[in-house]
Amino acid sequence: MSEKKEYKVIGTRPIRHDGVDKVTGRALYGADFQTSGLLHGRILRSPHAHARIKSIDTSRAEAYPGVKAAVTAKDFPTVEDKVADLGESAVNLQDLQGNILANKKVLYKGHAVAAVAATDPHTAEEALELIDVEYEVLPPVLDVREAMKDDAPLLHENLKTSSMGETADTPSNIASHLQFKKGDIEKGFAEADVVVEQEFKTGTVHQGYIEPHNATAMYNADGQLTVWCSTQGAFTVREQLTELLQHPVSKVKVVPMEIGGGFGGKISVYLEPVAALLSMKAGRPVKILMNRAEVFESTGPTPASYIRVKIGANNDGRITAAEAYLAYEAGAYPGSPVGAGAMCIFSPYKIDNVLIDGYDVVVNKPKTNAYRAPGATNAAMAETVIDEICEKLEIDPLDFRIINGAKEGDSRPDGPVYSRIGFIETVEAAKEHPHYSTPLEGKHRGRGVASGFWFNVGLKSSVTINVNPDGTINLVEGSTDIGGTRASIAMQAAEVLGISAEAVNPTVVDTNSVGYTDVTGGSRTTFATGYAAYEAAQDVKRQMIERAAELWEVEAENVQFVDGVLSSTNGKAESISFKELAGQLREPVVGSGTVDPEGVGGAFATHIVDVEVDTDTGKVEILRYTATQDAGKAIHPSYVEGQIQGGVVQGIGWALNEEYIYNDKGEMTNASFLDYRMPTSLDLPMIDTVIVEVPNPGHPYGVRGVGEVPIVPPPAAIANAIYHAVGVRMKELPMSPGRILKRMGKI
Amino acid sequence: MSEKKEYKVIGTRPIRHDGVDKVTGRALYGADFQTSGLLHGRILRSPHAHARIKSIDTSRAEAYPGVKAAVTAKDFPTVEDKVADLGESAVNLQDLQGNILANKKVLYKGHAVAAVAATDPHTAEEALELIDVEYEVLPPVLDVREAMKDDAPLLHENLKTSSMGETADTPSNIASHLQFKKGDIEKGFAEADVVVEQEFKTGTVHQGYIEPHNATAMYNADGQLTVWCSTQGAFTVREQLTELLQHPVSKVKVVPMEIGGGFGGKISVYLEPVAALLSMKAGRPVKILMNRAEVFESTGPTPASYIRVKIGANNDGRITAAEAYLAYEAGAYPGSPVGAGAMCIFSPYKIDNVLIDGYDVVVNKPKTNAYRAPGATNAAMAETVIDEICEKLEIDPLDFRIINGAKEGDSRPDGPVYSRIGFIETVEAAKEHPHYSTPLEGKHRGRGVASGFWFNVGLKSSVTINVNPDGTINLVEGSTDIGGTRASIAMQAAEVLGISAEAVNPTVVDTNSVGYTDVTGGSRTTFATGYAAYEAAQDVKRQMIERAAELWEVEAENVQFVDGVLSSTNGKAESISFKELAGQLREPVVGSGTVDPEGVGGAFATHIVDVEVDTDTGKVEILRYTATQDAGKAIHPSYVEGQIQGGVVQGIGWALNEEYIYNDKGEMTNASFLDYRMPTSLDLPMIDTVIVEVPNPGHPYGVRGVGEVPIVPPPAAIANAIYHAVGVRMKELPMSPGRILKRMGKI
Repeated sequence: MSEKKEYKVIGTRPIRHDGVDKVTGRALYGADFQTSGLLHGRILRSPHAHARIKSIDTSRAEAYPGVKAAVTAKDFPTVEDKVADLGESAVNLQDLQGNILANKKVLYKGHAVAAVAATDPHTAEEALELIDVEYEVLPPVLDVREAMKDDAPLLHENLKTSSMGETADTPSNIASHLQFKKGDIEKGFAEADVVVEQEFKTGTVHQGYIEPHNATAMYNADGQLTVWCSTQGAFTVREQLTELLQHPVSKVKVVPMEIGGGFGGKISVYLEPVAALLSMKAGRPVKILMNRAEVFESTGPTPASYIRVKIGANNDGRITAAEAYLAYEAGAYPGSPVGAGAMCIFSPYKIDNVLIDGYDVVVNKPKTNAYRAPGATNAAMAETVIDEICEKLEIDPLDFRIINGAKEGDSRPDGPVYSRIGFIETVEAAKEHPHYSTPLEGKHRGRGVASGFWFNVGLKSSVTINVNPDGTINLVEGSTDIGGTRASIAMQAAEVLGISAEAVNPTVVDTNSVGYTDVTGGSRTTFATGYAAYEAAQDVKRQMIERAAELWEVEAENVQFVDGVLSSTNGKAESISFKELAGQLREPVVGSGTVDPEGVGGAFATHIVDVEVDTDTGKVEILRYTATQDAGKAIHPSYVEGQIQGGVVQGIGWALNEEYIYNDKGEMTNASFLDYRMPTSLDLPMIDTVIVEVPNPGHPYGVRGVGEVPIVPPPAAIANAIYHAVGVRMKELPMSPGRILKRMGKI
Repeated sequence: MSEKKEYKVIGTRPIRHDGVDKVTGRALYGADFQTSGLLHGRILRSPHAHARIKSIDTSRAEAYPGVKAAVTAKDFPTVEDKVADLGESAVNLQDLQGNILANKKVLYKGHAVAAVAATDPHTAEEALELIDVEYEVLPPVLDVREAMKDDAPLLHENLKTSSMGETADTPSNIASHLQFKKGDIEKGFAEADVVVEQEFKTGTVHQGYIEPHNATAMYNADGQLTVWCSTQGAFTVREQLTELLQHPVSKVKVVPMEIGGGFGGKISVYLEPVAALLSMKAGRPVKILMNRAEVFESTGPTPASYIRVKIGANNDGRITAAEAYLAYEAGAYPGSPVGAGAMCIFSPYKIDNVLIDGYDVVVNKPKTNAYRAPGATNAAMAETVIDEICEKLEIDPLDFRIINGAKEGDSRPDGPVYSRIGFIETVEAAKEHPHYSTPLEGKHRGRGVASGFWFNVGLKSSVTINVNPDGTINLVEGSTDIGGTRASIAMQAAEVLGISAEAVNPTVVDTNSVGYTDVTGGSRTTFATGYAAYEAAQDVKRQMIERAAELWEVEAENVQFVDGVLSSTNGKAESISFKELAGQLREPVVGSGTVDPEGVGGAFATHIVDVEVDTDTGKVEILRYTATQDAGKAIHPSYVEGQIQGGVVQGIGWALNEEYIYNDKGEMTNASFLDYRMPTSLDLPMIDTVIVEVPNPGHPYGVRGVGEVPIVPPPAAIANAIYHAVGVRMKELPMSPGRILKRMGKI
């Protein structure tokens, strides 16, 4: 693939440090949290998708025996009209407040309206029925294109973007418009020998994490607020609480409990500020747990979207122009990931003439939030247009990608110039894979390929390392471990110090006990927190060299540290292992590393899928799936493979089954795991993975970040496979049995 | 007093950071710890003071419904025959194990023999009665001098020191002998014009911390052992568990809960290893709490002792020679603080000819442990001999101390040479105090003075500081906060950074989350962990200067940092506050400091006390008490005053009331707070304090450490006052009403 370095720990597959805790049930999740005097909170939610709140009266609930406090939006302090960057998503603070407890209007069914805290959950539940809310019900708008129409019901008064992307005089549901332009789009299409244009719709999809949201807050008389919760970023929760409650950052401590999945959906806060407000009023700790219906209806799924893509290519197989129109549902408040979709849609390719328009549109659905490669999976339906072009040009779709694939020095439509990237290598790996050359026999079977891109992010991370007397190290970090990052971070420190992964004892601590660390998201944790661990280990290494130098009475430059052994290089035969020296330290050795790295390396993936379509029922079976991906460097290959497999499975869910189904009133009719159909192991073959390693020059070990891009190609790859199986090009996600039969003209 | 530096934070009196948590009941102590599946452990204790264990059968207990595990000494692995230094005490590992669960013999009433874990505490209690132990009861020995006799019952077979301090052929109860010699003792006494020799006895006294010992242990299938407990040093508990259980240090995490007093008694482990063994067997977390009787009978009080002191002086008031014989009860296993007593006894004075003999002697009482200035309070009865000499020479006892007081450059009998110390200054402060010049009128009233010394210790500490975006800092430390050290450590960091004490958010974390830190003991925490905080803050300061330099594109040496403001010194008018810069950081700033300081500064105190003796009942009333003490620099004067007052009160307890009362069988007959009489606020006047500040050159702010020395002078000072009130010199502690009447010949 490219230059290979010899590593001792990196690239091996040690057992994750938290493995036994997780499989024995010892790991403590937010719902496990207990403390004396704990109250239980419950949230009253809107039964309407769109309504004006005329009044809320909590007095009967507050008088109910066992109830200790009730809160509404009025209990929030006023916050600034400013956008807060949460790492993988961004939100206006006033909107965030409005989403947590509705002010004036409710904008989706399930929108939080009020909350109570009581001595037990049942009393709290009962008290909700005693809260009197007067609504003026308004018609909802539930589809992005409907919402963009001039006569659509309006959610907000302050959004004034026209459907052409200009600032308008009258309010609309369009929160913003963005445009990326490169070259001359008209000239590009003029040069094309073949042009394909298609439009697509994608559904509202939930991250489907196993663990529902939960939060416990304890507000003390000295203003100290402590929150225990399930979050992708304890510091991001801290910042949100600081802003939403206008409370000093140093008076807020967030304790991240173990997390049962997040995928982007556990960055924004929902329960934490409510629990805090209740605790402030009640003077006791308050715990709130969501049930599954609340998770579906009241947290942040990924946007449904409308997408139009037009691509032109010449007979040499070169793309001459590409144009996209992306309209994403933000949900109740502005802030869809349409920008990220626009950054990703054509980024695997070198295209000289590009025009991308993106619209962020509010509708009466839950405020959307990040979900694994936010915005990119929707946009990647463009890969079916590529497939159609290849068909017309009679060119192998992988060869087409080799011809057009982006390389070092090429620029993305939104500006950034690539450093060394591995897209072409993923295509070559797919092409070389036996899967691609194995004939696919049988009726109604087809093979599809698609590629995908996710830019990855860097952001801030901090790590502290404390050396133990037996030569092990305690590594203190602030990154939520969702997918094995305790291991992947620990291994980078181990590599520097020449010790084993098992000799590193990683701990994820609260916001009082480690330096600022951004969310686990954007595929950044192994990259950036791993980088911080590398720096902290270098700091330890430097100090250990100094200690050895003192011991031997030589200069530090005369001590080398190789494979965990320090030795003098000035002729003396002194030598001591890291472990031995650790046992002899006087002053303890503590190293720290903090980063906000610039050298983020984008991630590319190319997938091959074989499907069989049951033409009687419309059911699609995945026969075989192979995913190639450039990991830069796979620190722990098993967890990279796990990330790829998990991402693919979620992408298959998007492709075939998952969507929010609404009735006319804007009520979700399938808010349970029974009715909202996610793929299970029974629905899937083994997902084969090929890790390509083109080191990212912006990271000491070449890490890129692997978690997100594998979700991007599956819907388009499967759509292409379905086409090659039964000859219909699907334009709407999910490609459920009914839609397939309809498209085939069978119903 | 001496050079005064201007500080902004040091020397002020901010409210302690944990104050509200403590007064509102929010602070979590070990007994508050809860977790799912928790079992409750109870310990079976010996009813005999001395017996051979012929057999232990736990089978009936194990079969009892609800019992999940039972353990005895057999469940311990074999450990090395080596002495472990616990910071303020030292103990042989095999003895420590034997003390935790008796092997072969029980050596005191209350000695732990076996333990059970059950689903609730009552079941555990009941199960103890089902453990069958067969004892061969042996005669106990309960007094140090009795134990030194040739025909005394023998506790151990392996101790072979003769009563002359030589190695003997036959076993004895004398564990060790030490001797400090300086000059020519015979010549010194020959030069004396007056020689006084006296002998003293002191009782067994308990630290009397409010919170009983507690420990919860959870052993997981991957070998991870987590322990929550009340301890003066989480790392010291970790090391003891590592050694006692032969378990890797990196697999042991100790979480220090809040502590309700320790005074030296919460350094050795008692319950932690037992809870761990039970958890290993039961596969569930196990919590054990002591009751008050267990605290008295089964933890480590301070030794009773026999002391003989001979001092000679010439007519000029100069001490010419001093000799001491110290025999301290170690309790059941070797390790009394007789060495520390020997290091302190004559150390306030410059004496050219000294001979000190110390004997460590085992008796059938609980293994003694550290208690505030361990060993020094017993030894300070020598101060009554000084008083007698002053009386004979007709010299004011404070003037005598000014003549003989040790100064910089003088050496202690055990060797060390003093750097700048403030003993004379404490004497001068006492002399200048209105108390000393106020006539004491009334019958049976007397005034006494005494001085005291404690050497203080340094040891290892680590601190990490994380900078928050609002310019506050989170300070991570490993020192148990017993007496306000969150504040006194935070203030030293605040001073460096030019921020307020309130802008520092100190947290005491578990052993996985901070660098190695020794016990809170030896008056070291404000000194050494404060020093580490100073170093960590300096590290932050250096980084902030670099960040400002980057911002302004100047060299770091052209940036100054004064009073929390960074400014450029190269002509540019750039300036930014620490707070503003903190808000603009890209990479987070994390600073760390680790120390093992050598420049420990000894602490001296001089006390004045007025008493009135009720000659009918023998009751002594403290009329007035003034304590002067050299703090070096008082970081937080209120907490220094609090330490002085607390130490004096405990010293008054030793002087007048406190002692273990044993019957002939070796059973303590007063193992409750009702019968073991500690002074309460109703028994005491306000304790007046005078802080003298002679900076310790071994600390950046001159800190010495203040917690221990104030307990040292009270017994002698009160004995002297009693003499001046009623004309009898008391030779035995406590100077209880009965002993006073006896000495006065009234009974």
